[in-house]
Amino acid sequence: MSLLVVGSIAFDSIKTPFGEVREELGGSATYFSVAASFFTNVNLVAVVGEDFPKEHLDAFTGHGINLDGLERSLGKTFRWQGEYGNALDDAKTLKTELNVLESFRPKLPRSYSNIPHIFLANIEPGLQQDVLRQVATPRLTACDTMNFWIEGCRDRLLKTLEKVDMTLINEGEARLLSGERNLVLAAKKILSWGPKTLVIKRGGYGALMFYGQKIFSVPAYPLELVVDPTGAGDSFAGGFMGYLAKQGEVTETTLRQAAVYGSVVASFCVEDFGLRRMWKLTAGDIKDRYTSFYDLTTYEHAV
Amino acid sequence: MSLLVVGSIAFDSIKTPFGEVREELGGSATYFSVAASFFTNVNLVAVVGEDFPKEHLDAFTGHGINLDGLERSLGKTFRWQGEYGNALDDAKTLKTELNVLESFRPKLPRSYSNIPHIFLANIEPGLQQDVLRQVATPRLTACDTMNFWIEGCRDRLLKTLEKVDMTLINEGEARLLSGERNLVLAAKKILSWGPKTLVIKRGGYGALMFYGQKIFSVPAYPLELVVDPTGAGDSFAGGFMGYLAKQGEVTETTLRQAAVYGSVVASFCVEDFGLRRMWKLTAGDIKDRYTSFYDLTTYEHAV
Repeated sequence: MSLLVVGSIAFDSIKTPFGEVREELGGSATYFSVAASFFTNVNLVAVVGEDFPKEHLDAFTGHGINLDGLERSLGKTFRWQGEYGNALDDAKTLKTELNVLESFRPKLPRSYSNIPHIFLANIEPGLQQDVLRQVATPRLTACDTMNFWIEGCRDRLLKTLEKVDMTLINEGEARLLSGERNLVLAAKKILSWGPKTLVIKRGGYGALMFYGQKIFSVPAYPLELVVDPTGAGDSFAGGFMGYLAKQGEVTETTLRQAAVYGSVVASFCVEDFGLRRMWKLTAGDIKDRYTSFYDLTTYEHAV
Repeated sequence: MSLLVVGSIAFDSIKTPFGEVREELGGSATYFSVAASFFTNVNLVAVVGEDFPKEHLDAFTGHGINLDGLERSLGKTFRWQGEYGNALDDAKTLKTELNVLESFRPKLPRSYSNIPHIFLANIEPGLQQDVLRQVATPRLTACDTMNFWIEGCRDRLLKTLEKVDMTLINEGEARLLSGERNLVLAAKKILSWGPKTLVIKRGGYGALMFYGQKIFSVPAYPLELVVDPTGAGDSFAGGFMGYLAKQGEVTETTLRQAAVYGSVVASFCVEDFGLRRMWKLTAGDIKDRYTSFYDLTTYEHAV
């Protein structure tokens, strides 16, 4: 079943210990939709400026991503500039130019209103709720967020959390949002605010998924070379939601497999700058790594 | 089959966000031997001072730990004082008093010379080799180490690595030892120096085990309350080696299960200060958590 994502499209300038790129295509909705496109039909809601080139549009449509919800506004596309240290963990943001993102108000084309799976990537929580109001009867809704909204408009963010089935955030965000240092306590608190499933992403350490009284742990795939961590979390979310949308039902089995697919897809994302690895990815690559991943994590239950 | 451990016995003074203890029984050999005692017969090689009370000796023997190799020297028992911040990761060492550990030269009683499984906990690498020379034909040898030896007597440490089957160290030590930031590259380099198996412990994130061309990832068990991380790595090693000694053979199956038992036992260790939780631990507790652990990590292979 098809999937809708609302989020940002950006030109990213990124420096890591392995090199530097300028005005590379990026943004949460970009990473998410390309990652999810390996599993299901993706419908993109986002905004770009007049400077957004046709080759990027072609890249999206080449992956079967529907662009009816993509708005082109007067002005320049959102730009972000960041740098990673040797640890390749959190990026240091050097510059943010919101540009057309500043006045973005997501308007869904009529054809999107019955899309069953909705992912609200990291945008202002009020806009996330605007999107939810424009879809008729979603089967599954999920959101991401970031420190800026947790600190800047917490009440509005809590309203989004009340309305979604799932939340995917990183470790630092989970701690800031909950006020709890311990992740199990943090998860309990966040789940009490609405979502039935919480995925806490931990960068190079993988992710923990909390649902009901249960926890599922998924590692990050160990790589010899991590070039650029940008977009790993959004790619995880794309693989996760894309797989659930493809399966069409959320069960304990599909949830766990979805978390593994999230980690598998994210592991490709970080192998090169921006989406360079993702554009070249094949279904066969994903299948092979899923199999390697199974070998990485499985053991016989001892007697 | 039985297991020998050589390492330190200490009185630890520990401060964490959850409280403070003074002169608590600790040390690498203590944590290791108590953890391993749930799986097999443990024989302890270590030194204590005149101030070491009978109640602690009784605690060891109460767990079936053989103390024929425990030396009592003139002077005071080794003391360590450390403090953990809110992140409960690396301890800040405030004070170290080597005392009787300073002149410790491990001498194995004759009855120990045929013990098949040997664990060289974190002591000076030359002493680790002395122990290896005193055992006849060990079936399995493993070592730990720390930054102090990596920086202070690297050549001697590399000689130990040449002689052991397995090495268990933490993430920071693996990076310092190999000079590689990336853990996969770090592991390749360390494995090229001798050991056939390398376990890299990652604190609250679990561990990665490298052997041959394979990697096995084991998470840390998510806990609502981590009181004191002291001894978690040694307890992991104790559960790991204890299980392998019990099984009597190193296969892919037992190696992976051993890593899980390591993580299971370590998860109890951190629930209270020092060994307080470990002394109360039962085989049933371990079995139950192993089962929970299986639920934490398993998923169906997707079609």
